Amino acid sequence: MDAPRALAFDVFGTVVDWRSGIIAELQSFGARHGLQRDWASFADAWRAGYAPAMDRVRRGELAWTRIDDLHRDILVGLLEGVPVGEAEIDDLNRAWHRLPPWPDAVTGLHRLKRRFVITTLSNGNVSLLTHMAKNAGLPWDCVISAELFGHYKPDPEAYLGCARLLDLAPEELMLVATHPGDLRAARACGLRTGYVVRPLEHGPGRPLPAVTDGEFELVAQDFIDLARQLGA
Amino acid sequence: MDAPRALAFDVFGTVVDWRSGIIAELQSFGARHGLQRDWASFADAWRAGYAPAMDRVRRGELAWTRIDDLHRDILVGLLEGVPVGEAEIDDLNRAWHRLPPWPDAVTGLHRLKRRFVITTLSNGNVSLLTHMAKNAGLPWDCVISAELFGHYKPDPEAYLGCARLLDLAPEELMLVATHPGDLRAARACGLRTGYVVRPLEHGPGRPLPAVTDGEFELVAQDFIDLARQLGA
Repeated sequence: MDAPRALAFDVFGTVVDWRSGIIAELQSFGARHGLQRDWASFADAWRAGYAPAMDRVRRGELAWTRIDDLHRDILVGLLEGVPVGEAEIDDLNRAWHRLPPWPDAVTGLHRLKRRFVITTLSNGNVSLLTHMAKNAGLPWDCVISAELFGHYKPDPEAYLGCARLLDLAPEELMLVATHPGDLRAARACGLRTGYVVRPLEHGPGRPLPAVTDGEFELVAQDFIDLARQLGA
Repeated sequence: MDAPRALAFDVFGTVVDWRSGIIAELQSFGARHGLQRDWASFADAWRAGYAPAMDRVRRGELAWTRIDDLHRDILVGLLEGVPVGEAEIDDLNRAWHRLPPWPDAVTGLHRLKRRFVITTLSNGNVSLLTHMAKNAGLPWDCVISAELFGHYKPDPEAYLGCARLLDLAPEELMLVATHPGDLRAARACGLRTGYVVRPLEHGPGRPLPAVTDGEFELVAQDFIDLARQLGA
C-alpha cells in the first residue's frame, strides 16, 4: 500500500490509559479527604458522562463547551454531597491532563515521527492535550483538537478540518484509534484507518469491540506493531 | 516579576533566519535552472510582498488565504517570464517550510520548554509551521497559527485566541518577537512582551527597529539570554 503522509491519533484510550490514570488520581484524592468509594466505578461513571455531554454539543443543545468544562460538570455531579473546595475540584479535574501513556506509546510515537507527521486528533481541548503531551513526553509534531473546528468527533468537520490544517487530501491522512466508531466516521470522510487494539481500556476482562475482518486498513497490537507495519 | 505560564513565539525572523534560508534556496534554484539574479534582492522582494498581501486579507479585500498561497502568488509574480513548471514553483515555495533556525534557537527553546509551555504564534499556516519544526528540530509544545483564528497578526483575535486555546488569561502569556509592532499589538491585548533583538534579520548593516526604553517587559539578545532572564 501507499504510505500515508501523516498520522492523526485519537488520544483517550488510544495513546493514554485514562482508566488507570483516573483511578490512581481518585484514590489519592480519596486518601487526602478520608473518603471511601469504589474509585474504579467512579472513574467509569466519570468517563461515561462524557459521550452524552458531547452529544448535547453535537446536537446543538449546548453551545461549544470544552472537554475540561464537560469533565468538570460531570465530576461536580458525581461529588455531590462531598465537602471539597473549588480549587480541589479543579485540581482533580486536571487529572485528565496527567494521564499515563500506554507502555508502548512514547517509543512507538518516536519511531513513527521519524517517518510521518504525527498529530493528535482528539476531542480533548488544546490546553489539555498540550499539558498531557508535556507531562507524558508525547512527541507530537502538532496538537490538533476538535476545539479548533467547534465540532466534536465523529462530526466530519473534525476529520476534514484536520486534513485541511495539514494541507493533505483526506486519503493522505490516517486516523489511528482504538474505537471502531471513530475509525468508521474517519473512513466515511475519506481518511485511512489504523485500528490499535487496547484490550485494557475499560479494565481487565472486558470484551473487545466488534469489528469486521478487513474493515480497517491496518490492525495493530500496539504502537510498536503499528510502526513496524508502516515501515517506521 | 511573576513568571508567565506560557511563551508564544513569533517565528519568521524571531526563531528562523528567513533571509539566509531563502537566499540559499534561491541560489540553488538558480543554479539548477541556469538563472543569474541578485538573489538577495529577490528574497527581500519576496518577503516584502507578504505584509501587503496579509493586509488585503486583514482589510477583508481578500478571503482568508494561507501564507503558503500568498507566498506562491508573490513568487509567481517575481518569476514572470522565467520558464519553470508548477511542481518546481511548489518546491521553491516550500523553502519557507525549510528555514534554518538562528544558532541559539533550538538550545534556547529546549531550555525554555523545561519551565514553560512554548508555542508558535505565527502568521504562517499550521502545515508550514509543522514542517518547519520537524525540519529544524523546534521542540514546540503546540503549534498555534493565525490560520486557526482566520485573523492575521496584528489583529487582536490572534493574540487573544492564542491565550484562549492555552486556557490562560492574557497576562499569563508572553509574546516573544523581534518585531516591535507585533509586541505592541500583543501588549494592547494584555499579553506580556519579550523583545529578542535579531540584528541580522534583514541582512548585515541594517539599523535596528526603534524601541523605547522599558517599552517591553524583557529585552533579550537571543533565546539563551531569554532563558537566563526567565530563570529557565
